Amino acid sequence: MVGYVGVENLIRLVRHVGIETVLRELADYIEDDFRRWPEFDKTPRIASHSRDGVIELMPTADNALYGFKYVNGHPRNTREGLQTVTAFGVLSDVNTGYPLLLAEMTLLTALRTAATSAVAARHLARPDSRILAIIGLGAQSEFQATAFHALLGITHLRVCDVDPAATEKFRVNMQNSGLTITLAPTAQQAVQGADIITTVTADKLQATILSDNMIGAGVHINAVGGDCPGKTELQADILKRSRVFVEFPEQTRIEGEIQQMPDDFPVTELWQVITGEAQGRRTAQDITIFDSVGFATEDFSALRYLRDKVRDTDFVTEIDLVVEPDDPRDLFGLLTQP
Amino acid sequence: MVGYVGVENLIRLVRHVGIETVLRELADYIEDDFRRWPEFDKTPRIASHSRDGVIELMPTADNALYGFKYVNGHPRNTREGLQTVTAFGVLSDVNTGYPLLLAEMTLLTALRTAATSAVAARHLARPDSRILAIIGLGAQSEFQATAFHALLGITHLRVCDVDPAATEKFRVNMQNSGLTITLAPTAQQAVQGADIITTVTADKLQATILSDNMIGAGVHINAVGGDCPGKTELQADILKRSRVFVEFPEQTRIEGEIQQMPDDFPVTELWQVITGEAQGRRTAQDITIFDSVGFATEDFSALRYLRDKVRDTDFVTEIDLVVEPDDPRDLFGLLTQP
Repeated sequence: MVGYVGVENLIRLVRHVGIETVLRELADYIEDDFRRWPEFDKTPRIASHSRDGVIELMPTADNALYGFKYVNGHPRNTREGLQTVTAFGVLSDVNTGYPLLLAEMTLLTALRTAATSAVAARHLARPDSRILAIIGLGAQSEFQATAFHALLGITHLRVCDVDPAATEKFRVNMQNSGLTITLAPTAQQAVQGADIITTVTADKLQATILSDNMIGAGVHINAVGGDCPGKTELQADILKRSRVFVEFPEQTRIEGEIQQMPDDFPVTELWQVITGEAQGRRTAQDITIFDSVGFATEDFSALRYLRDKVRDTDFVTEIDLVVEPDDPRDLFGLLTQP
Repeated sequence: MVGYVGVENLIRLVRHVGIETVLRELADYIEDDFRRWPEFDKTPRIASHSRDGVIELMPTADNALYGFKYVNGHPRNTREGLQTVTAFGVLSDVNTGYPLLLAEMTLLTALRTAATSAVAARHLARPDSRILAIIGLGAQSEFQATAFHALLGITHLRVCDVDPAATEKFRVNMQNSGLTITLAPTAQQAVQGADIITTVTADKLQATILSDNMIGAGVHINAVGGDCPGKTELQADILKRSRVFVEFPEQTRIEGEIQQMPDDFPVTELWQVITGEAQGRRTAQDITIFDSVGFATEDFSALRYLRDKVRDTDFVTEIDLVVEPDDPRDLFGLLTQP
């Protein structure tokens, strides 16, 4: 039998453990896996594009576990009350090829994206950072706020969205967070005085969410929303005066903010900063950018965390996804014998 | 909610409908999809190799549905009483990216492989074929026998395996099939007088299951077992005097019998024979070979068939693989609000 964690059990688990604890523990799994980056079998995601969106498969493996995530991106879905992004994933045993765990990953992806942002900022932002600006108050925004509060000690938020309904949803969800929140009418006003800026807008192509004049020295930019070909949030001039950090360069050059730059635009791989092989922030004046697009190892870490967390609990059930005949060569008998 | 057909329900469905009917109906779906081959988004499968095996993802899509199969191949698994191959798959809506159906595919793959073999033979074997030789009596063998009986009117089997236990399992499973069965001590004796030869051995690398002197004029060879790099069953000399038909040349040149041949070895694509764009068998003396490796569209056809077949029945259940919040932008509220 294969373990199964569906939507209901994932929600129960996160409520039981507490979302800040989940984000902290998940961040540790993600950081551990970045630390052993060379052990992973890595490939850019496999995308199937259609008129209204894309469906992607994101596989990776180490020498013990194989994981993949199925994820779609359909910006028009919200008009019909559907999610822009849905996801699920599977973790398998490399030695037998048998699947071990099937899990919903729409919620888990929201958690891992925020945890990854916080891991990167922990290594790249100024240690005295207390004020976070968030531009874009969609589904990912509260996860970002909570992760930066839990992992970096952020105390103040300055936030902005063009849609008042999104802003109100954010305000209600964050009202008991312990964070001081300033609702700003424009992105320009939101970023004033911020130590860290998260851009996480959706459904806009080659937008300029941040322009060069808005970015002062010492800021860390967590660029989350620019994550597919033709979708960017930062003016190219910002990239030129910043140090840019990425997950998997082969994928980021296609999907990230640096798709605006020449192919040889210098970037540093985040895992090398984490292991100490490469330098992160060098001075308090550096502008650092985490050009995040989301990589398969982060989903692998999330599935690995989930598997450990639900073991021997009732947050996991079993489904009969794999046949178990008495004689492995006798599938036919299963289908025909009484 | 996402539809789910696990092992138990697939077994119930096939027993309810009858395996010959399932194979016939499935073959029609497979043939229909071959007929509209240019409509599919096609890519070679994405493989992750490890010491003892491989895990693969096989995606494809038309303009309405997206499907993928997860499948492993671990030859040593049988030593521990496990399946060499396990599989599951998902069918999704291209317009929203939402998954529609999750299904076990270990059994479904066995069915679709046999149905595909029969579809190919229907177009390539001599119409008066009555005698089928099967070399290799593993998990796929009875499916082959049943599909050729149901779809081509095969009446006689000549079969062979080096393992007496496999032979006995085959004999028992086929005893009420209505087929006349001759157990042959060697492959050479099994193929004598056969109109069609299916090779479906496993766990042997670059074996010579069929040598050139064993193959007479007019035979159709259904080469199923040679399906990954380094694994072949036919002596190269047979290929040189035969007309070779394949599913997706880009994949077959890596995985099929023709991996033994130069890159420009001439092959004909099966779908073109089915549409009439290319000629199949030209004379009763031709040796035809279907160099089958299994392609993503066949799994897509199988998932499409299964979805249609279980609709509004109790052979399908629902699982909560996709989150359905009231507000698609409010995932956070689901995890934190009471």
